[in-house]
Amino acid sequence: MSAPVPGTPEERHRERMQRKKALVDRKVARATIDRGVLVVNTGNGKGKSSSGFGMLARSLGHGMRCGVVQFIKGTFSTGEEAFFRRAGGDLLDYRVMGEGFTWETQDQARDIAAAAAAWREAARMLSDASYAFVLLDELNIALVKRYVAVEDVLAALAARPAHQHVVVTGRAAPDALLEAADTATEMRLIKHAFQAGVMAQKGIEL
Amino acid sequence: MSAPVPGTPEERHRERMQRKKALVDRKVARATIDRGVLVVNTGNGKGKSSSGFGMLARSLGHGMRCGVVQFIKGTFSTGEEAFFRRAGGDLLDYRVMGEGFTWETQDQARDIAAAAAAWREAARMLSDASYAFVLLDELNIALVKRYVAVEDVLAALAARPAHQHVVVTGRAAPDALLEAADTATEMRLIKHAFQAGVMAQKGIEL
Repeated sequence: MSAPVPGTPEERHRERMQRKKALVDRKVARATIDRGVLVVNTGNGKGKSSSGFGMLARSLGHGMRCGVVQFIKGTFSTGEEAFFRRAGGDLLDYRVMGEGFTWETQDQARDIAAAAAAWREAARMLSDASYAFVLLDELNIALVKRYVAVEDVLAALAARPAHQHVVVTGRAAPDALLEAADTATEMRLIKHAFQAGVMAQKGIEL
Repeated sequence: MSAPVPGTPEERHRERMQRKKALVDRKVARATIDRGVLVVNTGNGKGKSSSGFGMLARSLGHGMRCGVVQFIKGTFSTGEEAFFRRAGGDLLDYRVMGEGFTWETQDQARDIAAAAAAWREAARMLSDASYAFVLLDELNIALVKRYVAVEDVLAALAARPAHQHVVVTGRAAPDALLEAADTATEMRLIKHAFQAGVMAQKGIEL
């Protein structure tokens, strides 16, 4: 292949991309800190938990030992549990602790006890350096309802092993948790199929 | 266990949750449409692709046949590819078509050819009812750069099998694609560890 002629569209594209690459490379070179990160997915849109499970897949793909605690287990999210239990093998410690949405149990004492038990499992993982990745799915719900104290969560996160990654999901993340986060995303609802009368779909919600 | 005494906090909680359950149940009862949905994840925050891969895990968990086309393949996202190739088995058709970020190749003709080849794979999956779930990862990048025509994508999506779910990810989704979506989320950046000098982490970005 002959070299592009200067001044052609191809050459101008190449020059723009060379400048962009230099910029990206400089930014990447400046990111030199190597440690575990706290990721928080919040907001009222879709994708908070599914993004956490996507990162779980990445972590398992690298052979990292992973822990999952699901704080709320309703009729939802059966697909990923089946898949990860089968595919994760010995690398994965998967705990489903919540007994359902609060309007399903209608029993606050039981919900509080379930949240406390889930938090004990989570705290155990956060204090164990053998877990390289910990997903605390729907923890924010338990924090919003004050079934788990945000101070306890912040203390456990601050004291965790330096290279352990943690992902916390759920609507209405407390401000203090967002401040502690390294990476935080608001999953903002643009629209949801449910609003148009489409029932929850296997592979998407279930 | 004795019945809660009316008027106690426990009983008031139960009554509130009963009203909430009635409301939720009515909403669920109104969602009677059962069909494939188009999910679009856009915005400048984290979680667009990882959420797509989380839904892939859900779909595989239900034994659904799945297709993945990655339109941009840089140095990123090696973890999920390793995991899903191993765990997906015969259910999964995983195609990595992009040859890198455009500032890495610096060759627009090659980028356009790669995007066209990726779109041919995607169009094949969208016309094949044996795929129950199709993830078009970073398709939006190819649309923004006009390497793939949005009209072609909309036509293929409209003509796809009625029960096929499709997830499209990437920044700057075209308005026409958002209009066609059943579920759309803007992953809004609150902050990213990279901004604070933390390098891309295995299990999180890689």
